[in-house]
Amino acid sequence: MSVIYDRVALIGLGLIAGSMGLAMRRDGLAVEIVGTARSAETRAVAAEIGLCDRITETAAEAVQGADLVVLAVPVGAMGALAKEIAPHLKAGATVTDVGSVKRHVVDAVSPHMPDGVHFIPGHPLAGTEHSGPRSGFAELFENRWCLLVPDEATDPAMLSRLRALWEAMGANVDCMEADHHDLVLAVTSHAPHLIAYTMVGVADDLRRVTDTEVVNYSAAGFRDFTRIAASDPTMWRDVFLSNKEATLEILGRFTEELFALQRAIRTGDGQHLFDYFTHTRAIRRGIIEAGQDTEAADFGRGAARE
Amino acid sequence: MSVIYDRVALIGLGLIAGSMGLAMRRDGLAVEIVGTARSAETRAVAAEIGLCDRITETAAEAVQGADLVVLAVPVGAMGALAKEIAPHLKAGATVTDVGSVKRHVVDAVSPHMPDGVHFIPGHPLAGTEHSGPRSGFAELFENRWCLLVPDEATDPAMLSRLRALWEAMGANVDCMEADHHDLVLAVTSHAPHLIAYTMVGVADDLRRVTDTEVVNYSAAGFRDFTRIAASDPTMWRDVFLSNKEATLEILGRFTEELFALQRAIRTGDGQHLFDYFTHTRAIRRGIIEAGQDTEAADFGRGAARE
Repeated sequence: MSVIYDRVALIGLGLIAGSMGLAMRRDGLAVEIVGTARSAETRAVAAEIGLCDRITETAAEAVQGADLVVLAVPVGAMGALAKEIAPHLKAGATVTDVGSVKRHVVDAVSPHMPDGVHFIPGHPLAGTEHSGPRSGFAELFENRWCLLVPDEATDPAMLSRLRALWEAMGANVDCMEADHHDLVLAVTSHAPHLIAYTMVGVADDLRRVTDTEVVNYSAAGFRDFTRIAASDPTMWRDVFLSNKEATLEILGRFTEELFALQRAIRTGDGQHLFDYFTHTRAIRRGIIEAGQDTEAADFGRGAARE
Repeated sequence: MSVIYDRVALIGLGLIAGSMGLAMRRDGLAVEIVGTARSAETRAVAAEIGLCDRITETAAEAVQGADLVVLAVPVGAMGALAKEIAPHLKAGATVTDVGSVKRHVVDAVSPHMPDGVHFIPGHPLAGTEHSGPRSGFAELFENRWCLLVPDEATDPAMLSRLRALWEAMGANVDCMEADHHDLVLAVTSHAPHLIAYTMVGVADDLRRVTDTEVVNYSAAGFRDFTRIAASDPTMWRDVFLSNKEATLEILGRFTEELFALQRAIRTGDGQHLFDYFTHTRAIRRGIIEAGQDTEAADFGRGAARE
C-alpha cells in the first residue's frame, strides 16, 4: 500500500481510532500518525502499545500540520472538540469523524470549521462490545461498511482520498445523506441495541432464571443480546440522546406492533400470529433472493464456536 | 456406537425428527427407524431422501412395536396425536416429544398415556429457520442442549436410556421441571423470537429504508433478527399460544423497561441511560467470568462469514 495522508491526527484513542492507527501503521497509509486523548492513562497505554507514532497532551497540538483529523470521541463531545481544534487546523486539511449519528455531528461540528478545511463526516459500521485503547485491532474494518456523509459543497478529490483510506483499511464505502443515515441506523442498529439492552435487563431482574440458564439455553440470539448490551455506555447514551427523533419513531412503531402481537397471544388469535410470522418469513426470503445473505443454516453457531 | 433402542418411531418428519433420523441411522443407534407424517408429500420426500428405514401412512401403524416414540409435531397438535396413538403403543415403550413448551405438552399428552408406557417430555434446543423434511441434518444436535422433563414417577432406567440417545446424537442433556423450563425458555427464546419478529416487521413497514440498506448496514444483530424471524410460522404460533402466561409476563416486563428507557431518551435523562447500560455491561462481565462465554471480539462475524 502507499501513503494516502502525510500526517493523520487521531483525537480520542478508543476502539475505533486505535484500530485505525494499527491498520494505517501496518499498511503504511500515513507518514506520521499523531494521537491524543483526554485521559492521561489512555495516552500512556496508547504510547505503550504503539497505536500512534507520537502522542500529544492536547487536541490542539495533535491537529497541527495534520492532513487528516479524525474526531473519535463520543457524539456528545464532538461540538466542543471542533471548537477547540478549529484555530489550529492546517489550511486544506480534511476533518472527519466516526460517530454513530450524523445529523447531530454535522450540526455541532460544521459551524466551527474554518474556510478551506474540508469536513466530511463518516461512520464505520464496525465495533465490538469492548472499548478503550487496548480494544483496537488492525482487522476491525475488513469487509465492514463505512458510510460517508458528504454534501453538495464537498470537494470530490478530498472525498475520493478519504474513501481510499477506508478502502485501504478493508472497508466497503458508501455515501449517504445525514438524515437518511440516522433513520437507517435507527432501524438497523440503534433501536435493536436498545431492545437488546432492555431484554438483558429484564432477564437479570427476574432472578428466578439463573445467569447460567440464560447463557446455556439461549439457542437463538439471546447470548448475542448480552454481547450487544455490554457495549460502551457513554457512546450509546450519546447515540440515543443525539438520534432521539428517529430512535423514538422506530421504538414507537416497534411497541405498537409488539402490543398487537401480545394482544393476539392473550386472546388466542392464532391466525394473526401465523399471518405475521408468514410475512416476516417472506421478508427473509426476499433478502436471500436479493443475494444479500446466504441460505446456510447457521443460526449463530459460527459465532458460538469462537 | 451401539444400538440404544430396537425400534424408534418418528411422528412428524420436519427439521427435528428428520435430523434425529439421520443421526440415528449414521451411528446405528436404532435397529429400525419408522417414520410417518400427516402430509403425503412429506412422506414421499422422507422416503426419497432416506430419513427412515420405513414410512407408514398413519401414526397408529408407526408406533406399533416401537420401543421409543418421538412426537415431533407442532405443540398444538400433541394432544390429539397422543390420543390417536395411545391404543397402539407397545407395553413398556418410552414416549417423548421435542416441543418447545413443556407444561402444555405434559397436560395434553399425559392423560392419554396407558399404564406401563413411560412418557418423558423433551426439548432439544436446536433448530434453524428452515423447516420440512429436507431441512434436517445429522449434526444438528452436536454441542446443543437437550432438556428432559421427568417427574417423580419417571423410571430412572428409562430416563438414562433416553439421555444416552441424546448424548449419542451429540447433545448435552439437562433435566428440568416443566414450569421452570417454560419460564427459562420464555426469557431465552420465546420473548426474543417475538421481539425479532416484531423488529423485522417494523423495518419492512417503513419502506423509507430499503431491504438492501437493512441488510448491508446491520452491523450488530439485525441480520440475525431476520434469520430468526424466518422460522416456521405454525411452530411459533403454537409456542406463543401454549406458553402464553410466561411469554406475556416477560413481554410485560420488557415493555415496562423499554418505556422507562424511551422516556429517558425523550426527556434527555442521560444519567438513567448511562446507569442502565453500565448495569447490563456488568451482567455480561458476570457471564464471562462464570466461564459461560468467551471474551472473543466476534460480534456476529462468525455467522456472517458463512
